[in-house]
Amino acid sequence: MAAATIDVAGIGNAIVDVIAHADEAFLAAENLAKGAMTLIDAPRADQLYDRMGPAIESSGGSAGNTMAGLASLGGNGAYIGKVRDDALGAIFCHDISTMGIRFDTPAATSGPGTARCLILVTPDGQRTMGTYLGACVDLGPEDIDPRVVGAAQITYLEGYLFDPPRAKAAFRRAAAVAHAADRLVALSLSDPFCADRHRAEFLDLIARDVDILFANEAEICSLYETRDFDAAAAALRSQVKIAALTRSAKGSVIISDDKTHMIAAVPVAQVVDTTGAGDLYAAGVLFGLTHRLPLPTCGAIGSVCAAEIISHVGARPAAELDKLVASAGLV
Amino acid sequence: MAAATIDVAGIGNAIVDVIAHADEAFLAAENLAKGAMTLIDAPRADQLYDRMGPAIESSGGSAGNTMAGLASLGGNGAYIGKVRDDALGAIFCHDISTMGIRFDTPAATSGPGTARCLILVTPDGQRTMGTYLGACVDLGPEDIDPRVVGAAQITYLEGYLFDPPRAKAAFRRAAAVAHAADRLVALSLSDPFCADRHRAEFLDLIARDVDILFANEAEICSLYETRDFDAAAAALRSQVKIAALTRSAKGSVIISDDKTHMIAAVPVAQVVDTTGAGDLYAAGVLFGLTHRLPLPTCGAIGSVCAAEIISHVGARPAAELDKLVASAGLV
Repeated sequence: MAAATIDVAGIGNAIVDVIAHADEAFLAAENLAKGAMTLIDAPRADQLYDRMGPAIESSGGSAGNTMAGLASLGGNGAYIGKVRDDALGAIFCHDISTMGIRFDTPAATSGPGTARCLILVTPDGQRTMGTYLGACVDLGPEDIDPRVVGAAQITYLEGYLFDPPRAKAAFRRAAAVAHAADRLVALSLSDPFCADRHRAEFLDLIARDVDILFANEAEICSLYETRDFDAAAAALRSQVKIAALTRSAKGSVIISDDKTHMIAAVPVAQVVDTTGAGDLYAAGVLFGLTHRLPLPTCGAIGSVCAAEIISHVGARPAAELDKLVASAGLV
Repeated sequence: MAAATIDVAGIGNAIVDVIAHADEAFLAAENLAKGAMTLIDAPRADQLYDRMGPAIESSGGSAGNTMAGLASLGGNGAYIGKVRDDALGAIFCHDISTMGIRFDTPAATSGPGTARCLILVTPDGQRTMGTYLGACVDLGPEDIDPRVVGAAQITYLEGYLFDPPRAKAAFRRAAAVAHAADRLVALSLSDPFCADRHRAEFLDLIARDVDILFANEAEICSLYETRDFDAAAAALRSQVKIAALTRSAKGSVIISDDKTHMIAAVPVAQVVDTTGAGDLYAAGVLFGLTHRLPLPTCGAIGSVCAAEIISHVGARPAAELDKLVASAGLV
């Protein structure tokens, strides 16, 4: 088996975020589930965009954010995801490539435009998302480059990939290629509603193909249909090598074999926008794992990254994460 | 003469900002004059974009930023500027319209795409800009709607409009329409290099058509080819009704007839990005003038608005300026 030349290969929906402030009344009027990601079609995306306030645009996508975090930490990443050859697609490609992340998935040359996620940030810093998947529906198993996945220590899959129809097959192919090369497969559950939509398939995938699971409290409880976090965590222990479970301001828990590591959150002066908190926590943990750091250190790096991202608007790092982590004495 | 139904009509280059962090070495390697706006063509814009880091996109344009500030203060604004009917043009239209600013300039349906300003923010918070004017070159006198300009208390023109070829004629037509309706005309000098490029025409315009002038220290000194701010200010006193001259952290000076008002800057915890500082100062002053507030109050509102914009990345307000100004006891 050749040595891995890539730390993490992330596979996800390639999305440009459109971020605006909104109040609770707006969410209610638009019938949006606060804190969740709702899939919307093109006419609804246009309607919601017309109604929301002035916005800024930033590359996003859950696994894309994680890869950006990994790169900012000094990790060596690759990304697989589908954009259209349009203006938003060019923005997405620029932002990920310029961070040194390998990204060669061919852009779609016809069909729907690059995906957009309309993100509404309420005064409490929570984000509520409406996603138009656009060109992401074109991602298929043919887009999984075995030279990339086979060369990555960890292949990281976002659960949102179960929403577009053909990405599920891409997902499974990536897991097969990774395991054939004796690599690890990580999965993020993405969203409690996503976990709910795909519960049976997620449970099957976790049992068979997932080595490392990322989830927050709501997601893991949704997956196991319980309100008891400890019960859900216990159910998971025998299923995966490592489970990294986030609990917002309460920090996170990393479970591995019979060990349980409690990780503190890094406090922030003001929670401005929680978009990307889970994605950046995952970036920190993945960086630690691929650099052979102890699990509590992996979690602590995740906490530093999550604290940075919730301190400003947008889900891509605004500071150099490698310096923050070095300042915190973690590397 | 009918009463004005619009507070301010802003006319400018309709631009989407592409904002990235960069260090001084990058500016030097790319031969960019720090703190200035350099005009670039499409191939150079593509080249510079390829070389710069990950970015966020935000609607910009000097007068566009000023109108956004006016709207956030509760003012009634209109905007005239030219985008292309493309993705960036749609973003610009959304962001300005959703703030309640009247914007009906028809988008170009052929020719160059919507203008982009590549903004590089250095660690000291200063911004350096490369602007590809794109569709802005299509703005002409036919785009000056006399129903808009004639109905505005003040027509506000950005000096950058002297760069695209036909906008100059639009500029002059707007001034003529405004004065025919017995309204006021305001001009911002925009940039010391812009003042240098168009010195003779600016001096002529100021003498004949401009009632209110906005400039910073470098711009006014460039215009009068002096290093002596007081000399430049003295030269200006007889030329315009009101001159509002900004001096960064030293605050601003408002000159009117034989009076000189010294306005303090509002201190900020950290200067994150100075993009839009002058634009937002102008928004505050224009709001004050069109609401019949005393000149020192107009300047103080400008200081509050400028302080807000330099506290975060981007040149459009992130907070509700009306509330900030009310908190400061200014309205």
